[in-house]
Amino acid sequence: MGSLTHRADLGSWTDPTCPVARALDLVGDRWSLLIIRDAMDDARSFTDFQRRTGIARNILTDRLRRLIERGILERQTASSGRRQLYVLTDAGRDLFTVMVALRQWGERYAYDSDEEHSVLLDAAGLPLADLRPASSHGVTATVETTTVVRATSP
Amino acid sequence: MGSLTHRADLGSWTDPTCPVARALDLVGDRWSLLIIRDAMDDARSFTDFQRRTGIARNILTDRLRRLIERGILERQTASSGRRQLYVLTDAGRDLFTVMVALRQWGERYAYDSDEEHSVLLDAAGLPLADLRPASSHGVTATVETTTVVRATSP
Repeated sequence: MGSLTHRADLGSWTDPTCPVARALDLVGDRWSLLIIRDAMDDARSFTDFQRRTGIARNILTDRLRRLIERGILERQTASSGRRQLYVLTDAGRDLFTVMVALRQWGERYAYDSDEEHSVLLDAAGLPLADLRPASSHGVTATVETTTVVRATSP
Repeated sequence: MGSLTHRADLGSWTDPTCPVARALDLVGDRWSLLIIRDAMDDARSFTDFQRRTGIARNILTDRLRRLIERGILERQTASSGRRQLYVLTDAGRDLFTVMVALRQWGERYAYDSDEEHSVLLDAAGLPLADLRPASSHGVTATVETTTVVRATSP
């Protein structure tokens, strides 16, 4: 664990006392999240990322730089010594929960019944369990059963 | 449940067979997710959203329109009959899991130890349990223990 704030090239936070907003300031754009998705699925080189996302080279260059500055990716040199590789830091790998939440929501709402999509399988070759927030007592938590309490000082 | 695809004003999907990518095409920008966050925390009117996010009026107008077209928000008329309200659809409310995942990641990585942030509490006034993907057998699932299997036809 640890704070990524000192690495961020952000002028300022959109909403400093909200953890959702800080997370979005760090990784909340479509291309960044798609790059992180691909890094979780073994993309490593510039070419890997470009081929998987179809992203324009200048945007990919910019997003890789930002993700490194923000502590989500780190650079490594391939064993050949020639190529730069981009691998997830611990903080980047810990976005797996966000990725699974996005995937499962997409599976529920963004497909017609006759459309095919990729699946995420566990070590037994089965889909993951439905990811659902739970209360401190292990009961399903929803928008209706939870409350946001603001920080006392900004 | 149900597909939001027929409502999307998207020219085409960035990566049609990936549920993560479709979810991001529908809601994957910072302002949309902040608007959804505020709708979960009882923001209803244009003024509510503007005051909470500090977003420019023209961007807010655009994002509210898109979120309605995509089936995440729906319009209601206030009981006074004068004001338009924006409320989450079932699909929108079901983004709670994504929101909790972003919040918990932000809490872990985007704060120094001396910085205050808002907290999300359950009905007992306690923080939610740590949200973690689990396998079909209930074992913690990670990037390392899972595999993406592509759709056979695009």
